[in-house]
Amino acid sequence: MKQLLLIGIGPGNPRQITFEAVDALKRAQVFFVLDKGAAKDELLQMRKDILERYIPHTDYRLVQVEDPQRDADASDYLGAVQDWHQQRAALYARLIESELADGESGAFLLWGEPTLYDSTLRILDHVQARGVAIELEVIPGISSVQALAARHKIPLNRIGEPLTVLPGRRLAEQVKIDNLVVMLDGQCAFAALDDPQLQIYWGAYLGTADEILIAGPLHAVREQILEQRQQARLRKGWIMDTYLLRRSL
Amino acid sequence: MKQLLLIGIGPGNPRQITFEAVDALKRAQVFFVLDKGAAKDELLQMRKDILERYIPHTDYRLVQVEDPQRDADASDYLGAVQDWHQQRAALYARLIESELADGESGAFLLWGEPTLYDSTLRILDHVQARGVAIELEVIPGISSVQALAARHKIPLNRIGEPLTVLPGRRLAEQVKIDNLVVMLDGQCAFAALDDPQLQIYWGAYLGTADEILIAGPLHAVREQILEQRQQARLRKGWIMDTYLLRRSL
Repeated sequence: MKQLLLIGIGPGNPRQITFEAVDALKRAQVFFVLDKGAAKDELLQMRKDILERYIPHTDYRLVQVEDPQRDADASDYLGAVQDWHQQRAALYARLIESELADGESGAFLLWGEPTLYDSTLRILDHVQARGVAIELEVIPGISSVQALAARHKIPLNRIGEPLTVLPGRRLAEQVKIDNLVVMLDGQCAFAALDDPQLQIYWGAYLGTADEILIAGPLHAVREQILEQRQQARLRKGWIMDTYLLRRSL
Repeated sequence: MKQLLLIGIGPGNPRQITFEAVDALKRAQVFFVLDKGAAKDELLQMRKDILERYIPHTDYRLVQVEDPQRDADASDYLGAVQDWHQQRAALYARLIESELADGESGAFLLWGEPTLYDSTLRILDHVQARGVAIELEVIPGISSVQALAARHKIPLNRIGEPLTVLPGRRLAEQVKIDNLVVMLDGQCAFAALDDPQLQIYWGAYLGTADEILIAGPLHAVREQILEQRQQARLRKGWIMDTYLLRRSL
């Protein structure tokens, strides 16, 4: 049997990793690193730093592969994502077959929380459905949502109220926007909202040296967020950001 | 100035704590432990074990206080919670005044994630509003929601879909139940649902030696969860559980 460890390594601060995750790092013989796009080199280096920091030896293999890009222009979003996942499943199946021996453990170092808006677990289900026998273990990590709330020192929920987390592309269709965390919003969907009572708590590159935090009434800080976001993205070549929207009472 | 650290210590597994949280533990001179009810002694012991495990000295003070109980019979839920928070704010303000010297750091060891269905941050806002000057720092922790998903090896969200987290008492009013995580459900609100397509992923005492996991179609495992939950609660005197509901496609 081959074992695969899906290890949550937190949002970017190398101290925001659990002891359980480090225990798992030490059990792996192979690390699979799959990135894509402009953030690739920097995210790879951050992962290497984590390995060097926490693993007392260098007796492991790093398998680095370019992840396929999703067809961002496809009209059928769900279909395009599913096609992309199948492509990645084929690639991951090949990697597991060729790079991991029976009895070995391979690890995926995943930013944030492995079960929240990360597709690795879903892709490995496809890999298993293709007949590749693997034993999975999932190790939770601090998500950017938690880092956001901690840095702004705000509760994610109000007393007894629901909390919703969603991707940016689902924001426009929300009837009632309150206690809402938005992830993966490359299009800045918040900029189109006009409820004067909305407060926004925004953060980018959370937990890293590049961290930016902005909070306030949406109408008052909207432009500031758009500008700072654009500048940071140009400077670094990529951005990861998230925000919470809440109506003031 | 007095500093207060709100430290997320994970759902119960002492390895599910971050290095950042342990760094913060080591900075504190005083630990405030406020519990109530039947779980009190066991939760206190688990916290003491964490301190002994991670702090190399014993040069700290443990301030242990019985937390006031909320009026569970009040007809006005929000009002009762707000009253209870004010009572606790008065108590916390006294503790900070009397137990923490200027320049010292006090810490609250909070189960799970300090910003998710935990009232400490909100109560300390009331304490500040009472004129007690404190500097706050929040350190994220792995929530039981994340431990639940990891142990069941399931993504919290489906591709591109929203995720909702809510307390049990808000479940009955949900129009559409899907990708829903329920916390704090002492009344077993799931038992009243009759959608035959609902899947449930349930877990109790996550991350501890007493952990129980049950998953399956709600109609098929409902009775099993109710029975095991009742037995466990009788045996231990308390229970902490959480679950995810998802409609099968």
